[in-house]
Amino acid sequence: MQQPYNVYEDRCPTRQVLDRLADKWALLILDRLQGAPVRFNQLRRDIQGISQKVLSQTLKKLERDGLLSRSVFATVPVTVEYALTDLGQSLIQTVSTFAHWAEQHMDAVLLAQVKYDEGAASTSGA
Amino acid sequence: MQQPYNVYEDRCPTRQVLDRLADKWALLILDRLQGAPVRFNQLRRDIQGISQKVLSQTLKKLERDGLLSRSVFATVPVTVEYALTDLGQSLIQTVSTFAHWAEQHMDAVLLAQVKYDEGAASTSGA
Repeated sequence: MQQPYNVYEDRCPTRQVLDRLADKWALLILDRLQGAPVRFNQLRRDIQGISQKVLSQTLKKLERDGLLSRSVFATVPVTVEYALTDLGQSLIQTVSTFAHWAEQHMDAVLLAQVKYDEGAASTSGA
Repeated sequence: MQQPYNVYEDRCPTRQVLDRLADKWALLILDRLQGAPVRFNQLRRDIQGISQKVLSQTLKKLERDGLLSRSVFATVPVTVEYALTDLGQSLIQTVSTFAHWAEQHMDAVLLAQVKYDEGAASTSGA
């Protein structure tokens, strides 16, 4: 019997996958790997504000879930490179659209925030 | 001069939007609103494991960012209904694909996890 997965069920394993992927650092890492492999230090430089520890932990989670692969080259010092797997490729277009959505819609979001805050202020002042 | 938004910059306001949207509860709420408005209590029932407090807080954040609207009907008891706005509609296809991705790829993810854990075990045993 085929196992039916349903992300709305809290005990379904897909819920844990969604929990790990629905993370700004995971999304930015995957997005940055689109197109070509990237070294650890380059990821750290490009994704501003990420700490070495969080980058390392997030890469491990994404590797364990099969979305990216890690390659070590015996240079001095050692070079560590990350790349999307086929599984990662199957999600990358969606990840990229999601990660960059706010860049295209930031003005509309800011306008909504102003309206919301005005409404909250007039309600509390009534 | 037009403001260039860049989600890779940690001080860009798009980074905070991504941080709020890249959340499993936010994604499941938006996905559940696809197609038609839904009442608060229905959302709570359908999204298993979400607490009333987290649902309420996440709905407020999504409303403030302009992705959904809240309507109150003077029934007894009062009915509160949530619906996607046009801004929310602009992201819903991406959200839906992202939220349900694991359901289609869970077997591949589980296989990757087994391989990763075997590799970690053989490394630590060497």
